[in-house]
Amino acid sequence: MKIIEAKKKDINCIIKMNKEMADYHWKIDNYYKSGREIEFGFKKWILKNFGKRNFKILIAKEKNKILGYGIAEIKKPKPYIRPKKIGHLTNLYVKEKYRRHGIGRQIFDKFLEWFKSREIKHIELSVDSRNQIGISAYQKYGFFEYQKKMRMDL
Amino acid sequence: MKIIEAKKKDINCIIKMNKEMADYHWKIDNYYKSGREIEFGFKKWILKNFGKRNFKILIAKEKNKILGYGIAEIKKPKPYIRPKKIGHLTNLYVKEKYRRHGIGRQIFDKFLEWFKSREIKHIELSVDSRNQIGISAYQKYGFFEYQKKMRMDL
Repeated sequence: MKIIEAKKKDINCIIKMNKEMADYHWKIDNYYKSGREIEFGFKKWILKNFGKRNFKILIAKEKNKILGYGIAEIKKPKPYIRPKKIGHLTNLYVKEKYRRHGIGRQIFDKFLEWFKSREIKHIELSVDSRNQIGISAYQKYGFFEYQKKMRMDL
Repeated sequence: MKIIEAKKKDINCIIKMNKEMADYHWKIDNYYKSGREIEFGFKKWILKNFGKRNFKILIAKEKNKILGYGIAEIKKPKPYIRPKKIGHLTNLYVKEKYRRHGIGRQIFDKFLEWFKSREIKHIELSVDSRNQIGISAYQKYGFFEYQKKMRMDL
């Protein structure tokens, strides 16, 4: 198994995994769009950013199978945040049957190398509060919660 | 005491309260900029948005004293969110010595009327996880946590 940068030919497979991830969230809370609903916009967003210096897609590949993927970005944070640039872990997904083998961790470690090479000192991510799998994994990687996003449905 | 829309002449007082709020966060975590550091950008942002249809500043005023203020916006949410527009409670601040008199609640209720008149069905806000005063107040208003923002400092 190796962690490598995605090529254009991997995009369809990444879109498929992103749909699975969207459906997972949509089942938790239909405030989120379903996989089918996000597909078009996600593809457009990927194609617009593919190959840019502050955007990176990694895939975990074994033989010819893609087992998971991640997307990370280097961004300007909100204006009230001190650092001038931060790393952002935008997506991290491992297909269900390949979980619990440390694949997510290996993808993250590769992003960490990238962030360090770009002199990033702070990494952020957002996770649904009911996604206990995600929260536990991110805590193990060394993340801590620092903000809550709250919502009211009228 | 009355809750009214801010006028241009109130901006300096709002900037002063915003600096107090920034300093509160900066003392919790110096990942946030201090009051002095955010002042200039905040003023620019206020002046750019003042009077716009999707932007509203309310103040709580008694005689000639401003006791607190709030800023709310109507926005397009992130692309993976179902509703086409959401309400956003961007700032809500009551000066320390006027707290525990329901002033924040009255400001929020006025925003709620505005959101309803604009057919908003969902309101979001972000709050620091260590700001227990804010979290408790927002829960009382009817907000629930649905996402966590996590961070790693390298």
